[in-house]
Amino acid sequence: MPSALSTDLYELTMAAGHYGAGTHSRATFELSVRSLPRNRGYLVAAGIEPALVYLEGLGFTEADIEYLRQIPQLRRAPAGFFDDYLPGFRFSGDVWAVAEGEPVFPNEPLLRVTAPLIEGQIVETALLSTVLFQTSVASRASRMVRAAAGRPVFEFGARRAHGAEAGALAGRAAFIGGCSGTSDVEAGLAFGLPLAGTMAHSWIMSHDSEQEAFIRFIDMYGDRTVLLIDTYDSERAVDRIAAAGLAPFGVRLDSGDLLAESRAIRARLDAAGLPGTRIFASGDLDERRIAELVGHGAPIDIFGVGTALSTSSDAPALGGVYKLVEVDRDGLVQPVLKLSRGKGTYPGPKQVWRVADRGAVTHDVLARDREPPPGQGRALLSLVMRRGRRLRPGPPMQEIRDHALRAVEVLPAGVVRLDEPTVYRVVVSDGLVRLTEDLRLRMHAVAG
Amino acid sequence: MPSALSTDLYELTMAAGHYGAGTHSRATFELSVRSLPRNRGYLVAAGIEPALVYLEGLGFTEADIEYLRQIPQLRRAPAGFFDDYLPGFRFSGDVWAVAEGEPVFPNEPLLRVTAPLIEGQIVETALLSTVLFQTSVASRASRMVRAAAGRPVFEFGARRAHGAEAGALAGRAAFIGGCSGTSDVEAGLAFGLPLAGTMAHSWIMSHDSEQEAFIRFIDMYGDRTVLLIDTYDSERAVDRIAAAGLAPFGVRLDSGDLLAESRAIRARLDAAGLPGTRIFASGDLDERRIAELVGHGAPIDIFGVGTALSTSSDAPALGGVYKLVEVDRDGLVQPVLKLSRGKGTYPGPKQVWRVADRGAVTHDVLARDREPPPGQGRALLSLVMRRGRRLRPGPPMQEIRDHALRAVEVLPAGVVRLDEPTVYRVVVSDGLVRLTEDLRLRMHAVAG
Repeated sequence: MPSALSTDLYELTMAAGHYGAGTHSRATFELSVRSLPRNRGYLVAAGIEPALVYLEGLGFTEADIEYLRQIPQLRRAPAGFFDDYLPGFRFSGDVWAVAEGEPVFPNEPLLRVTAPLIEGQIVETALLSTVLFQTSVASRASRMVRAAAGRPVFEFGARRAHGAEAGALAGRAAFIGGCSGTSDVEAGLAFGLPLAGTMAHSWIMSHDSEQEAFIRFIDMYGDRTVLLIDTYDSERAVDRIAAAGLAPFGVRLDSGDLLAESRAIRARLDAAGLPGTRIFASGDLDERRIAELVGHGAPIDIFGVGTALSTSSDAPALGGVYKLVEVDRDGLVQPVLKLSRGKGTYPGPKQVWRVADRGAVTHDVLARDREPPPGQGRALLSLVMRRGRRLRPGPPMQEIRDHALRAVEVLPAGVVRLDEPTVYRVVVSDGLVRLTEDLRLRMHAVAG
Repeated sequence: MPSALSTDLYELTMAAGHYGAGTHSRATFELSVRSLPRNRGYLVAAGIEPALVYLEGLGFTEADIEYLRQIPQLRRAPAGFFDDYLPGFRFSGDVWAVAEGEPVFPNEPLLRVTAPLIEGQIVETALLSTVLFQTSVASRASRMVRAAAGRPVFEFGARRAHGAEAGALAGRAAFIGGCSGTSDVEAGLAFGLPLAGTMAHSWIMSHDSEQEAFIRFIDMYGDRTVLLIDTYDSERAVDRIAAAGLAPFGVRLDSGDLLAESRAIRARLDAAGLPGTRIFASGDLDERRIAELVGHGAPIDIFGVGTALSTSSDAPALGGVYKLVEVDRDGLVQPVLKLSRGKGTYPGPKQVWRVADRGAVTHDVLARDREPPPGQGRALLSLVMRRGRRLRPGPPMQEIRDHALRAVEVLPAGVVRLDEPTVYRVVVSDGLVRLTEDLRLRMHAVAG
């Protein structure tokens, strides 16, 4: 969970600057992704609930404030910032958000924060790192799950995650994207996720023989377990299982040519009278490899995916931004716009409408927040926090996951395919186009 | 910081299995990286100190144990595991480690853990995620710093990191790799790192004019600050700074063609009588882009790097492993070996010797831990924890960073170059080759 200091120094420099200037204006910021990474036709929003929990609990401890006082860059900040403002600080803004598990596209706000400028500023860094990372993982998971075409996919990547917290958050996000569970016990506890796990090579290697290792495991845990068979030689391992009269729930392959090995192992299991024993495969898997195995009819029943999920390895960061879109200057509410080359944004608070035709989604409309809805669209953003308090608890994880699976299912087929997905259509409303152009003209006039 | 539950479920299943079997044997595990990612000629070890802090503080809370009791896969675990073993659990092992900041290469142990098998097992996941991630970032940082050829590089990537914890850990690791500081305030507090920060576009946009935004900032913080000039038009921004009679420490460019822009801005600053104002550049930078800018003589004084550092974006995961290399079976200490295709390991506890010739490092020798040293080599692994207690506090961050900079400097030139680095020579000692072959023969005999 981010602390109040989980922020870039400049957020605090600016906050103190606004405080010193007596700025009490309210501002609206929106968090969105600029563009999709290659190999992504859509994103699955995640990290929204954790972001709200962070906002609701935000505060500076005395130790935090003592530390801030002695940062060289803040030495000239007004004393009242440390003495009066920070001790009582809490987030008091309103937040609109898309539901976790919702498919989202570039330029669509995932979060919209309206708060005193200082507050909106201080939370920028933590909101970005919370939402972007989890959205990366949920999006990748969604691809894996689709590639597996109905076979369960478990997230096993804690050891390669970017630290322990990232491991637990990856477990949560992968579940949202459609995974069936995680191996990360902390994620299980923190988020109520189903856990999965088999055995490690060290279990085998710490026994005098592979067969003894298998027998001892089943003696203790019964036969609803998965035995790891590739420590020495997978086919011989099956023979040893059969010879010992064991009938495990599954066997796991974690290396080698998974297509050839799974076929050989399936045949061996069947021949040994173990047709019910599942084959669990892991080892450097990703959605392409899974699709290939499934496409070739590999007799694999369950997939375990590590690094590719927990780090979203092919796209480990999303180009996400948190942009000021409106500011209340002396009582005059004004949309704002940044002109930096290649980094333009749409001004003003926005809503996203998802338009469907007989159940099949056709496109989104990115509109100003108070424009009338474009016919039969569904609004993606709803008010989830008012004056710093959440309006309701987050939905159960299973519900979020179900929503994601259903919502991805009804996207256009080209958008959800693994390779060279088509570009999903996000139409910018007339109102938003007009506002953007008006503002651009006005600002070029100012800048000129 | 990882908790005791920051672990894969199977570590606990196996732990309970060993407990149930009355296994009290001690085992040795080694954590190493299998191979270098493309674009890496060397790694810089990091995360060691945080890993030791984790080991020293490890324990299960009552709530942890209550949760574990009701995990379906552990339902048949022996009651004593929950009632007797876990409540008093602490890590009681010995740990050998390389110094943080040490350059390391494939197959070289970064950590060697000798502990009761159960303990060594439970800590696997957290040790891997702690050491591998931070080593990734420190290694990337080292490349950035070398590319910048003496110009300071600051780590600014918290917002794209894999959550808040990853952001802070990235700040620490980047500093070890040679960065001059971080923007992450939590990293500053937690690890005593120098902080850096400028201002955001929102500061500019929340004022009535850019000039007013600049003046207010300098009014408060004085002229030792960096003004962000690319919100509207960088060159005009310089004019506004000059017209207001400001003389900031620096100006920051965060977008556009940094080579052309930095030249234009330098000329404009000089013409405005601001030759002392530094140019700070950021915006999707990585080591290649930095090298290119430096190579073309871009008048950039300071670099800020975000995503590429905090996620090690081109290699977001290292293929690291934590392998059982020796086990004490009924009092007989035996090196162990895994035969899985393509995933073989070297057995037994190891030491790494770094061999230099007149100050220039030539190669490493990977040897058995008790082999005599190969002539003039320096041993990289030293005992840092005995019976679960650290022998000394970690060195100050500045010392770790200095060591890393010096140690990378004396590596062969081909190994540290940015593109197509040469392969560093890691010689496997005769003793280790013999042990590996003996064991392989013996195990093939067993497996056959």
